[in-house]
Amino acid sequence: MTSTPATTGQPRSQASPFRLFQAINAFQLTEAISTAIELDIFTAIAAGHSTAQALAKQCGIAERGARILCDFLAVNGFLGKGGQQYSLTEDSAVFLDRKSPAYMGSCTKFLLTDEIRETFRDLTNAVRHGGCQHTYAHAPESPVWVEFARSMAPMMMMASQGLAEIVVGKESRSLKVLDIAAGHGLFGIAVLRANPKAEVTAVDWNSVLEVARENARKFKVADRYQTLPGSIFDVNIGTGYDLILIPNFVHHFDEPTNEQLLRKLHGALKPGGRVATLEFVPNEDRVSPAMPAAFALIMLAETPAGDAYTRSELESMFNHAGFSRHEFHAMPPSPHSVLVSTRD
Amino acid sequence: MTSTPATTGQPRSQASPFRLFQAINAFQLTEAISTAIELDIFTAIAAGHSTAQALAKQCGIAERGARILCDFLAVNGFLGKGGQQYSLTEDSAVFLDRKSPAYMGSCTKFLLTDEIRETFRDLTNAVRHGGCQHTYAHAPESPVWVEFARSMAPMMMMASQGLAEIVVGKESRSLKVLDIAAGHGLFGIAVLRANPKAEVTAVDWNSVLEVARENARKFKVADRYQTLPGSIFDVNIGTGYDLILIPNFVHHFDEPTNEQLLRKLHGALKPGGRVATLEFVPNEDRVSPAMPAAFALIMLAETPAGDAYTRSELESMFNHAGFSRHEFHAMPPSPHSVLVSTRD
Repeated sequence: MTSTPATTGQPRSQASPFRLFQAINAFQLTEAISTAIELDIFTAIAAGHSTAQALAKQCGIAERGARILCDFLAVNGFLGKGGQQYSLTEDSAVFLDRKSPAYMGSCTKFLLTDEIRETFRDLTNAVRHGGCQHTYAHAPESPVWVEFARSMAPMMMMASQGLAEIVVGKESRSLKVLDIAAGHGLFGIAVLRANPKAEVTAVDWNSVLEVARENARKFKVADRYQTLPGSIFDVNIGTGYDLILIPNFVHHFDEPTNEQLLRKLHGALKPGGRVATLEFVPNEDRVSPAMPAAFALIMLAETPAGDAYTRSELESMFNHAGFSRHEFHAMPPSPHSVLVSTRD
Repeated sequence: MTSTPATTGQPRSQASPFRLFQAINAFQLTEAISTAIELDIFTAIAAGHSTAQALAKQCGIAERGARILCDFLAVNGFLGKGGQQYSLTEDSAVFLDRKSPAYMGSCTKFLLTDEIRETFRDLTNAVRHGGCQHTYAHAPESPVWVEFARSMAPMMMMASQGLAEIVVGKESRSLKVLDIAAGHGLFGIAVLRANPKAEVTAVDWNSVLEVARENARKFKVADRYQTLPGSIFDVNIGTGYDLILIPNFVHHFDEPTNEQLLRKLHGALKPGGRVATLEFVPNEDRVSPAMPAAFALIMLAETPAGDAYTRSELESMFNHAGFSRHEFHAMPPSPHSVLVSTRD
């Protein structure tokens, strides 16, 4: 969003109600981008329907609706406008044109479920109590995670490739891999694609593993892909792993719960085996970088005691569970980071 | 909001899912600022309770809730953070500390009513049909406008003073003034304060005029303040006005409806009399400045055919109603502009 003053001229003060007004009304941007994705406005513009009149015809909407929605998206940086013609910005072309291989429009189906929206409406109580009392997120076989697995895969594609580069690199020795709370399965699948001798066991609720198995078939690695249904806190995972992936998982829980899990994983690794934890990791100031730092609010609103942990907090949990060596990897432009912790 | 990349290093492409993720999740900023206002976090920080621990005690909330909420506000530019200490930014100090004379926290009560939120949840249909089919906003004696009059007065204080400077200036001759859809009454009241010989008649629903009369008493101009309950489209307003104010009103209606109103006002003015229209006026490109341009989406979502009109559209409506001379005034840093149209 731009913070250009509404008019030129000498302001009386640097303070302006504009930013406050914009923050209070921020929900309008959620609705606008969600509506534009639902109506496939970006795909239509990519296909050359670039005026409000042409969009109205193509998308089956009112010309006035097309004009006002597209102007709003242009104000917020998701479209360009020259004369009466709208154009895609680089982000919109890459992520919001349905014909783009990196299309991410589906992620609104998870990020804007009624459960998540309603939970956030109760943010004041979450601040009062330091977390939400009841979370839809941790219930066994919660349908939320099936929606997550189906909708968020495109958003995780880049991070999964980045993780595979870090943990596989140019190695091609056989690898026994465990993928925890696998979801769409993309993290384990990326390891399988990077190393033809790797074998993955994916743990998640059975309903979610359906989606992971579909993806394993789609990426032609199903013959090296096994699934283990249940909660990672309860299932018997066996031993002898070279590599355990924990993508986007520890943020849901408090430190003692995570340490209990990490002790279990420590015992399941071969000596020299590694755990790769993919997370939103803010700097120690907890207010930068913006996206990992802002992620903590989602955990406050939607879990009893989860958090966006800093690197030192993550390392501390691993150290308490018996690990002692760590490597930390940023993965620009992904907002995720990876901590690789080794069992001596 | 900042658009700093999540991590440093050489990005693979300029495209980043960060801005899309931030836009989809924009509703979280609405909830965060609303919660912080409700819990009076900004007032507490202004009073010296500057750590999460101190805020928890002062505001009766969890320390973890205080920390995560304040970090999120810092990421979004509404707080500063140094070490464990939070501080107010200039905007927050001026507009969100309850002890500041320009405190605007109350405006969430109007801007985030359930009606407005629910109407926006139906934005896709508004885009399809070019407006909303049923609006809560235009019903006689709608309680929404009482809430508006009570909650939005602080946000209109600056604009009302700017308007009075423009239409009164250094003049002190007697002025017969009509204030249309007066709401909180601040626009007419500002004229009364600027010109001791002015007299105002305020038109609005009777329930809303209660609030305007309260404000007229508060500013000690009640003896020159009259009220005329009803819809401006229906009531007999008489004639002989020097000045008619139309603050934040024409954006609710389509051009034919506005022209019908303006013809009525033309007939009620003395020769040489003026209409001052205060509006969110985007440039002819309709995508700048950001705030007036973005305002059109609210009209799409919440009215059948309202809009953020450009200067040329406003002048055209006035010309069709018999006016021929116009002056246009920006009012930085207010996002409003004023069109002054004179009856020959």
